[in-house]
Amino acid sequence: MARSPLKNLDVLFNPRSIALIGASNNPFKWGFIIPTNILTGQYSGKLFLVNPYEKKVLNREVYPSVNAISEDIDVAVVVTPSSTVASVTEECARKGVKAEIVITAGFGETGAEGAKLEKEVVSIASRAGIALVGPNTMGVYSSEVSLYALMPPVRPKPGAVALVSQSGNLGTQLLDMGEQVGLGFTKFASSGNEAAIRTEDYIEYYGKDPDTRVIIAYIEGLKGTDGGTRFMEVAREITKKKPIIVFKAGRSEAGAKAAMSHSGAIAGSRQIYEDAFRQLGIIQASTIEQLLDLAKAFEGSPLPKGKRVGILTWGGGYGVVTADACEEAGLEVARLSPALISELDKVLPPYWSKGNPVDLVGTLDGKAHLKCLNLLAGSDDVDATIVLGLVAGASRFVEIMITSPGLPDIKGASAFGKMFEKGDEDIINEISRLVVLYDKPVVTVTLTSVKSEVNEAMMRKKNILAYSTPERAAKALSKLYEYQRYLYNAQGNKGRPILSEPPHKTQNAAETKTRSKSQ
Amino acid sequence: MARSPLKNLDVLFNPRSIALIGASNNPFKWGFIIPTNILTGQYSGKLFLVNPYEKKVLNREVYPSVNAISEDIDVAVVVTPSSTVASVTEECARKGVKAEIVITAGFGETGAEGAKLEKEVVSIASRAGIALVGPNTMGVYSSEVSLYALMPPVRPKPGAVALVSQSGNLGTQLLDMGEQVGLGFTKFASSGNEAAIRTEDYIEYYGKDPDTRVIIAYIEGLKGTDGGTRFMEVAREITKKKPIIVFKAGRSEAGAKAAMSHSGAIAGSRQIYEDAFRQLGIIQASTIEQLLDLAKAFEGSPLPKGKRVGILTWGGGYGVVTADACEEAGLEVARLSPALISELDKVLPPYWSKGNPVDLVGTLDGKAHLKCLNLLAGSDDVDATIVLGLVAGASRFVEIMITSPGLPDIKGASAFGKMFEKGDEDIINEISRLVVLYDKPVVTVTLTSVKSEVNEAMMRKKNILAYSTPERAAKALSKLYEYQRYLYNAQGNKGRPILSEPPHKTQNAAETKTRSKSQ
Repeated sequence: MARSPLKNLDVLFNPRSIALIGASNNPFKWGFIIPTNILTGQYSGKLFLVNPYEKKVLNREVYPSVNAISEDIDVAVVVTPSSTVASVTEECARKGVKAEIVITAGFGETGAEGAKLEKEVVSIASRAGIALVGPNTMGVYSSEVSLYALMPPVRPKPGAVALVSQSGNLGTQLLDMGEQVGLGFTKFASSGNEAAIRTEDYIEYYGKDPDTRVIIAYIEGLKGTDGGTRFMEVAREITKKKPIIVFKAGRSEAGAKAAMSHSGAIAGSRQIYEDAFRQLGIIQASTIEQLLDLAKAFEGSPLPKGKRVGILTWGGGYGVVTADACEEAGLEVARLSPALISELDKVLPPYWSKGNPVDLVGTLDGKAHLKCLNLLAGSDDVDATIVLGLVAGASRFVEIMITSPGLPDIKGASAFGKMFEKGDEDIINEISRLVVLYDKPVVTVTLTSVKSEVNEAMMRKKNILAYSTPERAAKALSKLYEYQRYLYNAQGNKGRPILSEPPHKTQNAAETKTRSKSQ
Repeated sequence: MARSPLKNLDVLFNPRSIALIGASNNPFKWGFIIPTNILTGQYSGKLFLVNPYEKKVLNREVYPSVNAISEDIDVAVVVTPSSTVASVTEECARKGVKAEIVITAGFGETGAEGAKLEKEVVSIASRAGIALVGPNTMGVYSSEVSLYALMPPVRPKPGAVALVSQSGNLGTQLLDMGEQVGLGFTKFASSGNEAAIRTEDYIEYYGKDPDTRVIIAYIEGLKGTDGGTRFMEVAREITKKKPIIVFKAGRSEAGAKAAMSHSGAIAGSRQIYEDAFRQLGIIQASTIEQLLDLAKAFEGSPLPKGKRVGILTWGGGYGVVTADACEEAGLEVARLSPALISELDKVLPPYWSKGNPVDLVGTLDGKAHLKCLNLLAGSDDVDATIVLGLVAGASRFVEIMITSPGLPDIKGASAFGKMFEKGDEDIINEISRLVVLYDKPVVTVTLTSVKSEVNEAMMRKKNILAYSTPERAAKALSKLYEYQRYLYNAQGNKGRPILSEPPHKTQNAAETKTRSKSQ
């Protein structure tokens, strides 16, 4: 009913001008914090501040009303009290504002009176064709125009993942955590009360957005009165082209009760949701952490054509853990052919394991590592490879060797460190090359706590998929496989998303991420 | 049979002098790397280097044999080729060495010939009363004498956790990851082939070590010929006094096969192990990450007397996720009494959730946070509290406000940041006080990616338990509860470990950790 057309969502995420209605000089008010976020975030359009009772906020001119601004306004961000939002929306309608982000709470989520107020606002916006975000939203982020119209001061990096969240705090938290795991975002919307624009509308828009390769969502319950029909229609179309990864909250009885109290969502039966999601080809994450782990996997990796995993490990124990993790995630530890084993025999010491996991038994020879990686990743015996401990071991050694007291001669030590660093670079380049060459996933597990800036930057640039533990790597791989099966069975298109080329195809993820829409 | 008496394990972990046999000037050899680790780790005893073919290594005098050293040698670290280890051990026996760490591989793990060699070495060591670590070990760490006799350059911090691992790479990796999560270690042994000293021997020793409050172990399979009898005897005694947390690898068919190939361990039936561990009161971790999460929980927190959890959240979505996570972990989302709700009513805005999770609905008032925390943590309605998003939100805001370009006036912003920082400190102090006062766990989830050095240091000092996600917090809490149930049912001692006082009792963890053995 009050659903906004997609073109207005395009304006919402790409506004040339924004009016912040309710600007304040009080640093404890959102009228101060949100414009600060927008300004420090270096929004590429124009920001106008509105408040009839202020002259200057953040050293900028303040307009008494949105209509007092001479230029056109694409988006209004509203933080005024709930009782004023209807009249503010009427002003926005007169001004020709295309989209409105209503931060203000105190609507449908608070009871009957708030619901009445909400209905009024929706009706005004709907008549004027204004795309209404919220109310009770934490805001919107868009990388294309560097827009951080958000309550919390988070700074997601640009990327290829779009997020919609029925929880503002969880959504902005995901943006923040994403930065830690090297995940960049195209767009984010905190959907708030979803009085007008709902989760499925954002997903539909993300589905058509050429910059977005992966869609992720935090859902407590579907809000429409249509029993989820439209959500299902939208999702069914998009999962043929792009992965949708969902974290469903309110799974338990206590969680469902909390969801009802939080967002008014009817969490619904866990089983019904899980079955529906599976049939729609939606990938389901079971923890917050996994939602990001999977986004990372789908953003940068090709899909495995089968479930046979080759494991290359620098240590036996981690090989065992990885074998367990693969099997427990529904993958297979690949059986290596005699031909492959005899090839590996030529490279490894005679006492190597002669099977999968391929244990490098502590050999320090970088050439042997590369050779084994090539043999394994290139073999028809495996559909994907997990590489343990070969990447990112260097800087720790160098750090300790160089910075620790008590060592009289660091000459040999730093030579050793350099050798290791060179090894990291070689392995990263080789993994990147092999992923393109064989179009199969190679997932790395970095067995180190050290954040080597150089390595991380290099890995991101080369789009190397890395996790801190084998369990997380195996789980991510299993979901890539699950999606490939879905595409294969449902679409018969041999397991490839057809809309956009993943970055491993272009050999340069950074280039892909910043390409203009006109391409 | 060839088991070493505990007193020699005491020497192993507290040697006054060490001889590194097989010292080398080649930085790619363990004979260079291990002494470098020992020296840069600032071992408090004396290190002597041995190699008949070298005069100087690392600018230090090299002795032609261990017998050429005039002083007593407590521990020998052996890296010479496997064929020489028997004669080296004979020399060590003549010298009166108390313990020997045989890094060298190529013994039982490689086949019949290696097994014969291993048996010979064990027999020599056994006759001489030498405690034999390995062979095929990655070494030993001991905080008391700052000994890092390890192959990889990892630097665990001192703490209260002792680790034994049947995988050297996984064990050292755990030490390294531990540093990230603020976990300190008393002792570590990579048990290698366990030709003489086995997992249960280390555990027995850790059980008697006054500095060790929590024991963790990576186990692929028990090595003794006694079908695990001694392990069970040892574990049954210790779990009455200290928690033992085990990660069992080789659970799947593929994992068991890999374990056999890696350490020669018979991984055994998953069910049999799990049942046995449960009966012994051993806490089982299902992932590597969880092993560390649990160590952290048991190291610093009191045990909950029941499973009713109070959830205090700064955002609704995280409350829902936490409610799900608690229920899925076997905990209960506490039902709040009308009395408690009416107390909370006095502090929170009228539209708060009026139930558990207690949603602070975005209020920025630090006093309200403290008051709600007090009411919840102190209430008889809850056995433990999870606090979401109240700690560590400050520095991010300050960082962005202060360091970002585009903001003309940062005065108000930095005031806001300071207010937040003060709030962090207040909350941390209050949590610390409440944990002592009520003797109940308070677990925090830091909803931020920022590593605020100040906050982290403060939280460690105050022994605040913190996780990055609600799922990890709930899982840790559920295991604390499981152990409390075990103690209560098995021992009837009201769920308290009886050997050592946890740090929340002393109000100063740092003091506890560095206290001398004589206390």
